[in-house]
Amino acid sequence: MCVPACTMKLADAAAEQSTPGPLTTAACAPAAYPMPPQVGAAPLRPHSFDQVIDLTHTLSASFPLTWPNSFDLERVSTLGKDQWNAYRWHLQEHSGTHIDAPLHCTHGLSGDRIPADQLVGPLVVVDIRARASSDPDTLLTPGDLVDWEHLYGPIPRGAVVALFSGWDAFVDDARKFFGQDARGVFHFPGFHVEAVQFLYEQRSIKGIATDALSLDFGPSTDFPAHHYWLGHNRWGLENVAGLGLLPAAGATIVVGAPKIAGCTGGPSRVLALL
Amino acid sequence: MCVPACTMKLADAAAEQSTPGPLTTAACAPAAYPMPPQVGAAPLRPHSFDQVIDLTHTLSASFPLTWPNSFDLERVSTLGKDQWNAYRWHLQEHSGTHIDAPLHCTHGLSGDRIPADQLVGPLVVVDIRARASSDPDTLLTPGDLVDWEHLYGPIPRGAVVALFSGWDAFVDDARKFFGQDARGVFHFPGFHVEAVQFLYEQRSIKGIATDALSLDFGPSTDFPAHHYWLGHNRWGLENVAGLGLLPAAGATIVVGAPKIAGCTGGPSRVLALL
Repeated sequence: MCVPACTMKLADAAAEQSTPGPLTTAACAPAAYPMPPQVGAAPLRPHSFDQVIDLTHTLSASFPLTWPNSFDLERVSTLGKDQWNAYRWHLQEHSGTHIDAPLHCTHGLSGDRIPADQLVGPLVVVDIRARASSDPDTLLTPGDLVDWEHLYGPIPRGAVVALFSGWDAFVDDARKFFGQDARGVFHFPGFHVEAVQFLYEQRSIKGIATDALSLDFGPSTDFPAHHYWLGHNRWGLENVAGLGLLPAAGATIVVGAPKIAGCTGGPSRVLALL
Repeated sequence: MCVPACTMKLADAAAEQSTPGPLTTAACAPAAYPMPPQVGAAPLRPHSFDQVIDLTHTLSASFPLTWPNSFDLERVSTLGKDQWNAYRWHLQEHSGTHIDAPLHCTHGLSGDRIPADQLVGPLVVVDIRARASSDPDTLLTPGDLVDWEHLYGPIPRGAVVALFSGWDAFVDDARKFFGQDARGVFHFPGFHVEAVQFLYEQRSIKGIATDALSLDFGPSTDFPAHHYWLGHNRWGLENVAGLGLLPAAGATIVVGAPKIAGCTGGPSRVLALL
């Protein structure tokens, strides 16, 4: 993820912002990325379900797009005139509800090389809405994860941990979704780098997800959560919808990530089985 | 689906081919398409799983593309030079392992409007490899479905029925995958229109799938299976992979169909839980 024209804002924003907590940029070595070999080597937790919850926003040209970006459906065939309706898509990978593959900011796996069994797992929903409603720059911390475990038990092996800030409710209001201030700095919640370090080092999970625009919080300019997490060959979801329809524990997430050779991520159909 | 330049071949091929069985073009009225209201209104069959099987081909420019088509990943950002790797995709919706939404050849639902619970269901794998190996124009018939039920029990309510011809093994050999003869007629298996009529009228299922290029068989020029099935607001998957890794009954399919406003289908990550 990169907020619009972020590369042009790095110097300004770095000078202007104060970041809560020790947001250091984790090392992002270009080689020797560990494959995710252990996660999912154990059987998935058997799970029964009778509901499907859609965690995907509808993507269109009006979706608040990050990055210098464009989105267009070019009609290539029209029913009546032709025998079929069809479009050619022109879209940037990191649009809508989408996955960031490790390759997005490292030399790790492209989206198509993420093994299928890494895309399914128990969903852990960490609700930080209360803080986010008064502080859009709030971060999900290791403390939030420990608090979750006190309530619901250990984060399951092979889980996907979702940051639930309530930001999906703002998706039709780009001003609020980006939270851009007069200086051009963005404001929305994200993962503290120490939380993703904790998840990688002390819990064996498959992926992380957020209902806001980026794994890193709005004001970030060095994107430490991205670099640490993707740098360890893990994937992340951004702009996830509908987490409020789920319990904190008990759902299974299935990430319909694109399998396009060499992709750095892409729009994904994200479903939860409950 | 439309085989390359098919609209130009309709007249020639219609004159040249003989079609096995009564392949009538089903009515495809432009209005009053029934929503799929009943399928999935009942709870999904509770299902436990511990494996994820990928039913998706990797899509690239070398995939045997149907239709006058092109596929391109345009690099828009490069790690090192920029802070991220990213591409803009330029692709036609009906490429690779993909879903046909009803809108593809009717005035029915676009892909984003297919309810999420219609994308998950018990997977029925109907193996017609033996016939397909000697007759590439073979069709999956109501008799095949009845035979399947004699072996495995009734097709479950809310199921997805997959035609397993073995065609996914030819995906790296476009000549064999298309099966185009000297006259330009294509040869690969498909659904007999009477099979999809049987599934719609006598079994309550959510979708159909094939490991070949089209729901209709290669020589078809009027595409009756498409028109009947999509005309009843159901969806179909084409170019599915890996059905041979699954039992005839017992898996659950999860179709990661794109949720792009107005799309007529699109590349989908198709997973089976087993």
